[in-house]
Amino acid sequence: MGSFYTIIAGAGPGTGRAAALRFSKTYPVVMLARRPESYEDIVRDIRQAGGQALGIVADVADSASLSRAFDIVGEALPNLKLAAAVYNVNSGFMMKPFLELQLDEFQNSFGKTGDAFFNFTQKTLPLLREAVKDSPHPPTLITTGATASIKASAGFAAFSAGRFAMRALNQSLAREFGPQGVHIAHVVIDGLIDTPASKAWSKTDVPDSKIQPDAIAETYWHLHIQPRSAFTQEMDIRPFSERF
Amino acid sequence: MGSFYTIIAGAGPGTGRAAALRFSKTYPVVMLARRPESYEDIVRDIRQAGGQALGIVADVADSASLSRAFDIVGEALPNLKLAAAVYNVNSGFMMKPFLELQLDEFQNSFGKTGDAFFNFTQKTLPLLREAVKDSPHPPTLITTGATASIKASAGFAAFSAGRFAMRALNQSLAREFGPQGVHIAHVVIDGLIDTPASKAWSKTDVPDSKIQPDAIAETYWHLHIQPRSAFTQEMDIRPFSERF
Amino acid sequence: MGSFYTIIAGAGPGTGRAAALRFSKTYPVVMLARRPESYEDIVRDIRQAGGQALGIVADVADSASLSRAFDIVGEALPNLKLAAAVYNVNSGFMMKPFLELQLDEFQNSFGKTGDAFFNFTQKTLPLLREAVKDSPHPPTLITTGATASIKASAGFAAFSAGRFAMRALNQSLAREFGPQGVHIAHVVIDGLIDTPASKAWSKTDVPDSKIQPDAIAETYWHLHIQPRSAFTQEMDIRPFSERF
Amino acid sequence: MGSFYTIIAGAGPGTGRAAALRFSKTYPVVMLARRPESYEDIVRDIRQAGGQALGIVADVADSASLSRAFDIVGEALPNLKLAAAVYNVNSGFMMKPFLELQLDEFQNSFGKTGDAFFNFTQKTLPLLREAVKDSPHPPTLITTGATASIKASAGFAAFSAGRFAMRALNQSLAREFGPQGVHIAHVVIDGLIDTPASKAWSKTDVPDSKIQPDAIAETYWHLHIQPRSAFTQEMDIRPFSERF
Repeated sequence: MGSFYTIIAGAGPGTGRAAALRFSKTYPVVMLARRPESYEDIVRDIRQAGGQALGIVADVADSASLSRAFDIVGEALPNLKLAAAVYNVNSGFMMKPFLELQLDEFQNSFGKTGDAFFNFTQKTLPLLREAVKDSPHPPTLITTGATASIKASAGFAAFSAGRFAMRALNQSLAREFGPQGVHIAHVVIDGLIDTPASKAWSKTDVPDSKIQPDAIAETYWHLHIQPRSAFTQEMDIRPFSERF
Repeated sequence: MGSFYTIIAGAGPGTGRAAALRFSKTYPVVMLARRPESYEDIVRDIRQAGGQALGIVADVADSASLSRAFDIVGEALPNLKLAAAVYNVNSGFMMKPFLELQLDEFQNSFGKTGDAFFNFTQKTLPLLREAVKDSPHPPTLITTGATASIKASAGFAAFSAGRFAMRALNQSLAREFGPQGVHIAHVVIDGLIDTPASKAWSKTDVPDSKIQPDAIAETYWHLHIQPRSAFTQEMDIRPFSERF
Repeated sequence: MGSFYTIIAGAGPGTGRAAALRFSKTYPVVMLARRPESYEDIVRDIRQAGGQALGIVADVADSASLSRAFDIVGEALPNLKLAAAVYNVNSGFMMKPFLELQLDEFQNSFGKTGDAFFNFTQKTLPLLREAVKDSPHPPTLITTGATASIKASAGFAAFSAGRFAMRALNQSLAREFGPQGVHIAHVVIDGLIDTPASKAWSKTDVPDSKIQPDAIAETYWHLHIQPRSAFTQEMDIRPFSERF
Repeated sequence: MGSFYTIIAGAGPGTGRAAALRFSKTYPVVMLARRPESYEDIVRDIRQAGGQALGIVADVADSASLSRAFDIVGEALPNLKLAAAVYNVNSGFMMKPFLELQLDEFQNSFGKTGDAFFNFTQKTLPLLREAVKDSPHPPTLITTGATASIKASAGFAAFSAGRFAMRALNQSLAREFGPQGVHIAHVVIDGLIDTPASKAWSKTDVPDSKIQPDAIAETYWHLHIQPRSAFTQEMDIRPFSERF
């Protein structure tokens, strides 16, 4: 399966890292992040484990920056086809009373969330579609969603608006590209992910009450290997202890 | 009740006109539209019926334009408080295969939908909140939604993304401003509205299979007069004949 | 409009009473309850206000009992057609850890909830359909739902199962009988209703934080008068202060 | 892992068979069906593949019948704990105009659907809970849902009512038993499953347009092996070609 690769937008210490490691067992993995610190460790760990990894600095919300990234991919991995794209960009988080929001803050959260996803899917969907014929598993686009994708709480107007929008985009793309053989999956992560950052600011005595990134990555991989007769469009993931 | 008024963003021949006429039975009505042709007839009809109406050219997606409109309102209707705001802006409609969409088209549909609603609610929510104490009915923000607010079909990625986002914004605002006494309602209009335009391009022999704008306006009025112990946050409206 | 009547299953001190009083302004009202105490006051109050009211002891979960009730209606109100039916039966409430539930308790909550609604709609839908041609407003079936209709909390397995089922029945009936001109509406009451009983066991200093039954009744009446081009299938009602 | 077993209610040629074969790679599998023909082939195939299988004739809607089945399990597999329970009972399907339904038909579809799931979960949840401490994966209850679990179409009143109810039961049980370590998952199968029966009556030229039971079984297994920090409560499965 050397002729296929995976791309992950939003590498970082949680889901991005875990997904990169998981998919690197089968495919070379390209990671996009705004800062090299976000992927350097992951690239190193994948290579140490015998896998292939490439990190590229890119801002997916900026279409020119993203185009340059795909040019680099084309040069570094010539003739490889795209088997899976994971959209894990952690953009747009904002909690604020609505009337304290400024228009530019709203646009930076809401508008950019949409633009970034638009740019990424415009680039990856044609590539995923090209891989339909011979990919070992149906080419897959997996998007990391959040509680705010399905529930808009007070103080989260901008953030929820962006997340609801991404859910809509996924639904629409599933209906358009599913019949063409591309698997579009949206995963609602309903709980805190266990990362160095979340360890610091949310202490709890309940073991496993934060979501293990490796577990998310295993589910992402499972989504990827679903055959086209049995695609999942949406699913939730939450800790056993989560009230919902 | 002469000391309160209603504002309607998105005056036009369908829901906007009907809502303006309905609310003008009780309040002076301000209408915002990008072109004066959209409200001139309505202003005339309201005045002929003995009501007060004011049309203002404004682009709600442009915050400076909207600010000027509210300055005009302040001068024309001094000392009036805002009892109801109807957001009926018909923005962002776009049906196109996803990969044919250009980024600027996407932003014009999706981003502008969010920005326009953001601008309008930033201006009206403080005014609605000021009216809580003495408004005859709880001050109300009513938003016209669409089928695409809850279902993202193939070819409607940008449009649905904007509509899902507006639904999220309404939900979040309901949770934030409801406890402050402002009624936030989102109405999913699931069907074709009977307007001169829709008469032309969708002919049908089934009477009443297009939604009568007056009926929507009656429901909007009903939402406005709900007391605060019994607010409706979301409801659908569709013709009896609609498959859903 | 003397030739039409309304029937309300589940008369009682809250929504049932308020709906009876509201609809009695236009129609004679028949009330069904298991005990005469539930409707005696309402009948008296309606008559004192100049309306027509008839209370009948019936158990809607028992089809024979319900048939007898409709026989009585036929004799007492000959030649009247059914313009509106309100299903407000407060059945099946049960909060208990799942493993403490006995099968007969489950059946008494869940099964009976379904059976009662089935019996009532089997009797009323043919009558509502007969009234389509000349009823002043589209004949309407309104069902009182609850938070548990859309969210199944821990400890509410049996109750939620019944409420979800009633929501399904309403959706299916809307799709089947809507095109025949009968309006099927389901109202999710998400909050505590202000009744003598709830006053006693839930005290609160927040005015209007319990739903006023009269407000529910006004919304039910609004649903009834919606023309067939603009039916609402589902809506929520909750106090401004409710967290949701 | 010889000290744990799986039980499957609703063995048969589609999902039941595939789940049994998949879970038998790790656990002895007990199958319940009303007729031995439903599981005989599966038992044979599992044994030929080196696994352990036991078929028991039982009607899960009948609590006495189900109790006898669990007595047999206790004798045949002493000291084994229950690691997974799959509820795949294909009950209650009924398509009929609502007014042609008889009460007993409704009860046979709707009421029995609830009773059967109630009986099964009353028996299995205590056993799953006992296995929390040492089960190799969190003890899991997986329920096979259907399109009718989330959408109630015309003509499917009884069937949808039962399916909505099962979804509610799963949601409530997830909230009650999740925090106790038991994984409760509900899978909405939105499409036709490829079985000998469906091959006969629905011919199509589109390959993979019917769901392969093996693919469902792989997803069920994936749900089972999710660690407790990352439980999925609900997901859909549908063919790439399905309009939804």
